[in-house]
Amino acid sequence: MSLTLAQLAQALDAELRGDGRTLIEGMATLKDAVPGQLSFLANGRYRRHLAATRASAVILRAAEAGAAPSAVLICDDPYLAYARAARLLHPADTLPRGIHPQAVVDPAAEVDASAWVGPGAVVEARASVGAGVFIGPACVLAAGVSIGAGSRLVARVTVLAGARVGQRALLHPGVVIGSDGFGMARVAQRWEKIPQVGSVSIGDDVEIGANTTVDRGALGDTVIEEGVKIDNQVQVAHNVFIGAHTAIAGCVGISGSTRIGRHCTLAGGVGVVGHLDIADHVHITGMSMVTHSIRAAGTYSAGTPLMENRAWRHNAVRMKQLDRWVRRLDELEKKFSIKELSK
Amino acid sequence: MSLTLAQLAQALDAELRGDGRTLIEGMATLKDAVPGQLSFLANGRYRRHLAATRASAVILRAAEAGAAPSAVLICDDPYLAYARAARLLHPADTLPRGIHPQAVVDPAAEVDASAWVGPGAVVEARASVGAGVFIGPACVLAAGVSIGAGSRLVARVTVLAGARVGQRALLHPGVVIGSDGFGMARVAQRWEKIPQVGSVSIGDDVEIGANTTVDRGALGDTVIEEGVKIDNQVQVAHNVFIGAHTAIAGCVGISGSTRIGRHCTLAGGVGVVGHLDIADHVHITGMSMVTHSIRAAGTYSAGTPLMENRAWRHNAVRMKQLDRWVRRLDELEKKFSIKELSK
Amino acid sequence: MSLTLAQLAQALDAELRGDGRTLIEGMATLKDAVPGQLSFLANGRYRRHLAATRASAVILRAAEAGAAPSAVLICDDPYLAYARAARLLHPADTLPRGIHPQAVVDPAAEVDASAWVGPGAVVEARASVGAGVFIGPACVLAAGVSIGAGSRLVARVTVLAGARVGQRALLHPGVVIGSDGFGMARVAQRWEKIPQVGSVSIGDDVEIGANTTVDRGALGDTVIEEGVKIDNQVQVAHNVFIGAHTAIAGCVGISGSTRIGRHCTLAGGVGVVGHLDIADHVHITGMSMVTHSIRAAGTYSAGTPLMENRAWRHNAVRMKQLDRWVRRLDELEKKFSIKELSK
Repeated sequence: MSLTLAQLAQALDAELRGDGRTLIEGMATLKDAVPGQLSFLANGRYRRHLAATRASAVILRAAEAGAAPSAVLICDDPYLAYARAARLLHPADTLPRGIHPQAVVDPAAEVDASAWVGPGAVVEARASVGAGVFIGPACVLAAGVSIGAGSRLVARVTVLAGARVGQRALLHPGVVIGSDGFGMARVAQRWEKIPQVGSVSIGDDVEIGANTTVDRGALGDTVIEEGVKIDNQVQVAHNVFIGAHTAIAGCVGISGSTRIGRHCTLAGGVGVVGHLDIADHVHITGMSMVTHSIRAAGTYSAGTPLMENRAWRHNAVRMKQLDRWVRRLDELEKKFSIKELSK
Repeated sequence: MSLTLAQLAQALDAELRGDGRTLIEGMATLKDAVPGQLSFLANGRYRRHLAATRASAVILRAAEAGAAPSAVLICDDPYLAYARAARLLHPADTLPRGIHPQAVVDPAAEVDASAWVGPGAVVEARASVGAGVFIGPACVLAAGVSIGAGSRLVARVTVLAGARVGQRALLHPGVVIGSDGFGMARVAQRWEKIPQVGSVSIGDDVEIGANTTVDRGALGDTVIEEGVKIDNQVQVAHNVFIGAHTAIAGCVGISGSTRIGRHCTLAGGVGVVGHLDIADHVHITGMSMVTHSIRAAGTYSAGTPLMENRAWRHNAVRMKQLDRWVRRLDELEKKFSIKELSK
Repeated sequence: MSLTLAQLAQALDAELRGDGRTLIEGMATLKDAVPGQLSFLANGRYRRHLAATRASAVILRAAEAGAAPSAVLICDDPYLAYARAARLLHPADTLPRGIHPQAVVDPAAEVDASAWVGPGAVVEARASVGAGVFIGPACVLAAGVSIGAGSRLVARVTVLAGARVGQRALLHPGVVIGSDGFGMARVAQRWEKIPQVGSVSIGDDVEIGANTTVDRGALGDTVIEEGVKIDNQVQVAHNVFIGAHTAIAGCVGISGSTRIGRHCTLAGGVGVVGHLDIADHVHITGMSMVTHSIRAAGTYSAGTPLMENRAWRHNAVRMKQLDRWVRRLDELEKKFSIKELSK
C-alpha cells in the first residue's frame, strides 16, 4: 500500500515538515530504512541512528525534528503514530469465507456464513463460530465452545470445555484454552484427580500469544477480561481472573485462583502463586515471584542482579549466611553502645 | 447428574446434618453457588464466604459445621470429599469408539476395537492403541509407540520415538512426548548433534498438562513412573527419571539425566540442573533453582522476596557487594575484640 | 546396524585395545549396556560405573583405559566420539518422498519432487519446500514461507509470516516460527496493537526444540544465524538477533530487539530483557536474568542458592533489609574510627 506524506500526516494528525507529495511504500527502522520508506524515533536508545537514516521521512517528537536528515512527521506519541502508520501501510489481508473441504465441521455446529474454517480444522457439535471469524488450519474447537465475531485463530489453536471467546480475539498458534486445571487431592500417598468442570470466559479484544495455555476452572470459570494482552508461553491456571487491559509478557506463570487487577503489567518470566489478590495498576518487573497479595498500585520487584560468575559465587555463599551476619552486626552494635555508655 | 444429599452422604461416607431428600444438581464455590448446588470449605482462606453462601449444602470439617447457613456434609478431608462429589455430579462423557473417516491410520498400526481415533489424527505403522483409549483430534502417534488401555489424549498430542505410555494416562493438548533431547558435542567452535536414540517410558495413571514436553533419552529411556502428575508447560529433558507419585507444577524445567525421587513436589517455575539426584519426599518451593543433589527429605527454597521497586533497587545493589561487607564486618569485629582485649 | 570394533576404531580415529572382530550392535550407558553394546565415559560423574559395566567396549580417554573391564576405544574427546559412533550405529531412517493424499498443498506452492509432505500437513500458496525436505504430519506452512533443502519439520510445526528457514534445519513438534511479536502502544488506558509486519530469517544447520516460539519482527526480521541450537520451550521475541553457533537451553526467554552474540550459551531458564547487546562468547548460567548489555566475553550469573526452607525464610527477610544493614555497618565503622581516633 502506498500513501503520500501529506495523506499520512493527515491520517496521523501529525505536523509535516517536508514534501507532502513524497510517496511512502512501507515502514522500516531508522537503521534499515531505504528511500521510499517511513521510519520513527520513539525510544531514545535509537537516536544515534537518526542522523544516518535513509528513510524518506521519520515520525518523531518536535524536539528531535532538527536532527533528522529527512522529512519529518511531528507528533506527541511517535510510538502510537508508528502503530497507526504501520496499519495504514500494511493493511491486513482480506480473509476468505466458507469451510475448506478438508475441515471437519459437525452438522450440529453453528458456523456463520461469513466465517472461514481452514483445512484440517475440527469444529465439534454445538460449537459456535461468529461473523467474520477466521479459524486457521488445524484448529480444534471442542463441543459447545463459542468464538465471537471478528476473531482470528491463526493456526493450531485448541479451544475446549465450552470456553467462550469474545469478539475480535487474536489467538496465535499453539494456544490451548480450556485444558484441565492442575487439581488433585492426596489420598494415602497417591494423587486423586479433582474433576475440572468449570470453563473459561474471555472478553472482547483479547490477544493471546503462541503456545500460551489457559486452564478451565475447577468450579466456575477462569476469566480474562476485555482488552487483556498476553504474550507467548504464558500459563494461566484454573480460576485465575485477569482484569481488563492488563498486559502479560512471555513466560509468565499465574497459579490457581489468583486475581490480577485491571491495567496491570507483568513483565517476562514473572511467577504468581495461587489464591492471591493483586490490585489494579500493579506492575511487576521481570522474573519476580509474587508470593503475597498486593493491595497498593505501584511497581514491585524481586531477584538478584547479574554478576560476573566469580563475584556471584562469592556473594551467593553469603546469601546463605545473611541471617547470621545480621545477628553478628546486632551483637557488635550492642557491645559497642555498652562500651560507649560505660566509658 | 442429580443426587440427593442422602445419596451423597453415603457415597462420601460423610455425616449429613440437614434434609437428606434435598436434590443436588452440581457443585460451585461458596461464593458462586446457587440453591440446588453443593459447595465445600477446605482452605481457611475461603471461610469468610461460608456465612453468606447460597449453596444447598456444604462439605466441611465438624469444627466449621456450626457456621454454615445450609445443610452440611461433615468429613475429615473436605477437599477429597469435594473431588469425589464432583466426580459423582459431573460424570465423564461416554467416549466414542471407532476410527473417524478423516483420521489417518496406517494399516500396520494396531488399534483396539474399543478405542477412538478422532478426525485429523495420524497413527503410524506399528503404533499400538489399547482398549478404550481416546485419541483426540489432530494427535500424532509416530511409528512404534504404544498407548495403554483407558488413556485419553485430549487433542493435538504428539507421541514419538517408540514411547510407551501406560494405562489411564491423561495427556492434554499440545503435549509432546519423545522429541529429541538437547545433546551436542562441541567441535571446532561448532555444535555436532548427538543422535538421540533412546525412548520414553511412562507408567500408569500419569497426567501431563498442556504444552508440556518430555524428551526421549539420548541412550536409554526418559522415565516417568506411575501416578506422576505434571502440570502445563513443563520441560522434562532426556534421561530424566521422575519417581512415582511425584507432582510437578507449571513451568518447571528439569535438565538432562536428573533423577527426581518418589512423592516429591516441585512448585511452579522450579528449575533443576542436570545429572542430580533428588531424594524421595523432597519439596521445592516456587521458582527455586536446584543446583546440587538433595539427599534428605524436606522442603527447600531459593529466591528473593518481592519488594517495592525502589527498595529492591537499593537492596539489589547491596547483593552485589555482600562478600565485601562481610569482610568489613569481620574486620570490625576483629578490631573491636582487640580493642576490648587491650583495654 | 552392526559394526566391528575394528571398523569403529577406524571410523572414530581411535586407538583400539581389544579384539577388533567383536561385533557391536548399538550403544548404551555404562550402567545399562549389555554384551554386544558400546558405551562411553566422558563425564567423571559416571566413572563409578566403569568397573562393573557389561559393555563389550568403552570409548574413553587414555588415562581411564586401565580401569575398564572391556575392550576400549581411546581418544581425546570421548563425548564427540560417542556422538559419531551413535550416528554410525543408529543411522537415520530413509525418508519418504511425495505428498500424502491427506496433505493439503496449494497449487501455487512449490514442493520439490524429492521432498515429503505428510498427512494433515497444510502448505499454502507460494510456500517453497526444498529438495529432500521432510514436512511431518499436521505441519502448517503459511503463504510465502520457504524451507531449505534437507530440513526436517518433525510434526505439528507452524511456519508463518514469510519466514525463511535455511538448509538442514531440524524443527521439533509444536515449534511456532513467525507468530506476531508482542507490540502495543498505550492509548487512553487501552492497548493498541502495533502491526507486526517483519519476518524471520533462520540460517543453515539450526535446530529448534519442541514448543519453542520465534516471533516475526515488528519491522525487519528476527534473525537466527547458522548453527544456532535452541532447546524446548524457548521464547524468542520480535527482532531478536541470535549469532551463529550460539546454544540456548530449555525455558529461556529473550525479549524484543535484543542481540545475542556468536558462540554464546544461555543455560536453562535464563531471561534476557529487551534492547540489549550481548557480546560473542558470553555464557549465562541457569535462571539468571540479564538486565543490561554485556560487552565482555565471560560467564555471568544471578540468583540465590537453594537452602533448607527454614533457613531460607530467615535469610529472605534479611534480603529486604540489606540496604539498611549496610548503612548500620557504615555507621558503626564511622563511630568506631572516631572513637579510635579520639582515644
